[in-house]
Amino acid sequence: MIELLLVGIGTGNPEHLTLQAIRALNSADLILIPRKGPDKDDLAGLRRAICAEVVTNPAVTLAEFDLPVRDETIADYRRRVDHWHDAIARVWAGTIAAHPGARRAALLVWGDPSLYDSTLRIAARLSPAPKITVIPGITSLQALTAAHAIPVNEIGAPFTVTTGRRLRDEGFPPGVDTCAVMLDGECSFRALPMEGLHIWWGAYVGMTEQITLSGPLPGVAAKIVETRAEARARHGWIMDIYILRRGT
Amino acid sequence: MIELLLVGIGTGNPEHLTLQAIRALNSADLILIPRKGPDKDDLAGLRRAICAEVVTNPAVTLAEFDLPVRDETIADYRRRVDHWHDAIARVWAGTIAAHPGARRAALLVWGDPSLYDSTLRIAARLSPAPKITVIPGITSLQALTAAHAIPVNEIGAPFTVTTGRRLRDEGFPPGVDTCAVMLDGECSFRALPMEGLHIWWGAYVGMTEQITLSGPLPGVAAKIVETRAEARARHGWIMDIYILRRGT
Repeated sequence: MIELLLVGIGTGNPEHLTLQAIRALNSADLILIPRKGPDKDDLAGLRRAICAEVVTNPAVTLAEFDLPVRDETIADYRRRVDHWHDAIARVWAGTIAAHPGARRAALLVWGDPSLYDSTLRIAARLSPAPKITVIPGITSLQALTAAHAIPVNEIGAPFTVTTGRRLRDEGFPPGVDTCAVMLDGECSFRALPMEGLHIWWGAYVGMTEQITLSGPLPGVAAKIVETRAEARARHGWIMDIYILRRGT
Repeated sequence: MIELLLVGIGTGNPEHLTLQAIRALNSADLILIPRKGPDKDDLAGLRRAICAEVVTNPAVTLAEFDLPVRDETIADYRRRVDHWHDAIARVWAGTIAAHPGARRAALLVWGDPSLYDSTLRIAARLSPAPKITVIPGITSLQALTAAHAIPVNEIGAPFTVTTGRRLRDEGFPPGVDTCAVMLDGECSFRALPMEGLHIWWGAYVGMTEQITLSGPLPGVAAKIVETRAEARARHGWIMDIYILRRGT
């Protein structure tokens, strides 16, 4: 049986790597590196840079592979993603099979493999099923709270983690005063009644490019929209995340 | 101005430390180590073990201090905690003041400083206000999902992080099918209608003592209650966490 190591690498700061992640990468026979992918080019290069920096075991082989592209002719979003994940699983399997001695293969996962990431779901498609080992990594939510030096929760209070699409479609989550919003390409906070909301926003959190803004949402929303557009144009890509809190 | 480094250390596996955390600890003039605290004895010892292992800069001074105890004569919970946090802030300030050359002091924070942790709130009491720098660490929620090799969210779906008390008082959180429950000393899932819920439970997640159980809640609840009680009796303390998901 093959063992598959899914190694969380944090959010673009090579120093987010844990000692456990470094040990895991050095224990692998094979590290699978996507040549292109859902990550933007800067992030793909980060995987190679991390391996160059922390993989010191000469027995580890880096195996690059071309990530399949999504079939945009499939109209249904979920079917399109399923089809794409199937294709990725086949490429992983083929890349591993091309190294017959490899028993343990590792993948570097942006952030943490548990949080809005498809690596575990792709791994579940492999047949025969590999042994899956997950190494946790720093998430963008933690990089955001660290950048602002704030707790995500109020004392003893719950919070919800959601997506930009949900926030647009369903509004502020029920039953909580705090929500963290991920996967939002559209500054979806603009769809909310802003009065009484505070926002802590960050782009490229944890990276040298990090930008943060915070304040009462009505006062700072326009500035975030403008800053985000400008940064995206300058870098060619953007990843951002934010926390909204009621009544602060 | 003093700089205060709040360094997330993960959940009891010294290998949860990030390279950033190790660098931060070695950059400190002073590391504040509580002699006793809200953490159980095993965990207090962990801080010393981590420092012994990763602090290689001889210029770093370890300063142990006695953590104040809560004044149980204060009936109101929030007032009791506030009073206690005030006392802790005074002890930090006194310990730092006892080392007049120290400009940068570090504290080792269990898990991540943003998640159900009071270190940031205690630090906010210091006067004059220090510069606060947060170094994110692996949380118990991530250690749990890693142990079970599961994503916390369903595809594109939100989830809520809450406490045992909230789960008991308010039931399964509204608007989500997944919730993560922390700070639960009482297996509060027993207060829920269990039918249709799946649980992924873990104690001592990330540590060598780690125990995990999962399955449909009606079938596994009693086993978790029993396992938890037995482990607590054996170790003298327990920390556990779980994820509940509807409709799986």
